[in-house]
Amino acid sequence: MKADRAAVCDLLAEYGALIDMAKFDEWLDLFAEECRYQIVPRENFDRGLPAALVFCDSRAMLEDRIRALREANKYNIHTDRHLIGLPRLLSPESEQLVVEAPFAVYQTDQEGETRLFATGLYRDRLACVGQRLKICDKLILLDTFAVPSLLATPL
Amino acid sequence: MKADRAAVCDLLAEYGALIDMAKFDEWLDLFAEECRYQIVPRENFDRGLPAALVFCDSRAMLEDRIRALREANKYNIHTDRHLIGLPRLLSPESEQLVVEAPFAVYQTDQEGETRLFATGLYRDRLACVGQRLKICDKLILLDTFAVPSLLATPL
Amino acid sequence: MKADRAAVCDLLAEYGALIDMAKFDEWLDLFAEECRYQIVPRENFDRGLPAALVFCDSRAMLEDRIRALREANKYNIHTDRHLIGLPRLLSPESEQLVVEAPFAVYQTDQEGETRLFATGLYRDRLACVGQRLKICDKLILLDTFAVPSLLATPL
Repeated sequence: MKADRAAVCDLLAEYGALIDMAKFDEWLDLFAEECRYQIVPRENFDRGLPAALVFCDSRAMLEDRIRALREANKYNIHTDRHLIGLPRLLSPESEQLVVEAPFAVYQTDQEGETRLFATGLYRDRLACVGQRLKICDKLILLDTFAVPSLLATPL
Repeated sequence: MKADRAAVCDLLAEYGALIDMAKFDEWLDLFAEECRYQIVPRENFDRGLPAALVFCDSRAMLEDRIRALREANKYNIHTDRHLIGLPRLLSPESEQLVVEAPFAVYQTDQEGETRLFATGLYRDRLACVGQRLKICDKLILLDTFAVPSLLATPL
Repeated sequence: MKADRAAVCDLLAEYGALIDMAKFDEWLDLFAEECRYQIVPRENFDRGLPAALVFCDSRAMLEDRIRALREANKYNIHTDRHLIGLPRLLSPESEQLVVEAPFAVYQTDQEGETRLFATGLYRDRLACVGQRLKICDKLILLDTFAVPSLLATPL
């Protein structure tokens, strides 16, 4: 697949923006029908330990997860802000494109205090579905294993 | 207007860099003659409450505002650093281009301490004036309503 | 030199990613044979004071520096995360390209706490060496003069 930098940047920007606006249905639609979404502490990943903080290997499972988060959010009211850095387009495999991008997520609570919530690296496999680029596999390498109230939103 | 991603990225990068270098005359020149600049807490905006923290609906008003900030800065000495994330180019209207980009601003004080100052989202309407892309409308959705010493610099 | 935005973004993204993965040999390879790498507090730079926190004016010197850092890291175990903002491509000189980009570096310690470590501006001179864009001169303007444990990694 030809590496289309503009389409990759669009997809990443949309990914962050849709979470920040809590538009989770549109966010889910960025994923391919067959998809995987994982949050893994970077340290585990580097050591070859497979334990994920979150593991969804179908979109149905991801939808279910999101529903749970929205329920949980009633009790942990905050807003998110994703900052996603310049992506690296890695050597494209046959049909898919591998992309890495660093991210930081900030959260603002009801008192109006904004704090750094988490940093890490997205490692995505993307593929064209019809005319659109979609996420087939999203691996979120989290810099810390100690995320407070991780359940509150997707990263 | 054709969405020219490179020109949009240039304009956003320049916007942040000029504030960070305190080159406010060049910064003002990024705005069209007829322009609007607003800072609105995101919460107000989402609820349809129009109250802005800062509201300038002409470049003269924005210039006046900047003069006041520079005066205030004599008593709140710090430097800024803007980090602006990947932009989303939204469906172009007839003559104008709507762009959104998340941002984080860090401030460093005279003791050398660097802190997160604010996060939020830029929602800009841009238009070509001569050969250059300029800002017609800048809406700054601030993640918090509680910004300390907001007056100190533009966001 | 023609300003190739995609190549510049690739180089910047790779620069940050390779440090974050502690792939320092590949990181060194981003620099031209004849190169300079400096970290200067922004305040010094603005006042025309030449004192650098780190000054390497050859790749051999930079390699030596990196070896020392890796040794030091045995006692200051942490991971880095670079977020690099949209770059500005400044008016290209004859053979070289001048690029500026803001950055934030976060560090995560062994307890899993992630903190903002430093913010600043990269000012790079880049040139094509063979088919690849390489760094001839990297000036890192650090927003603070007070960086704790600066030695721990390159910025």
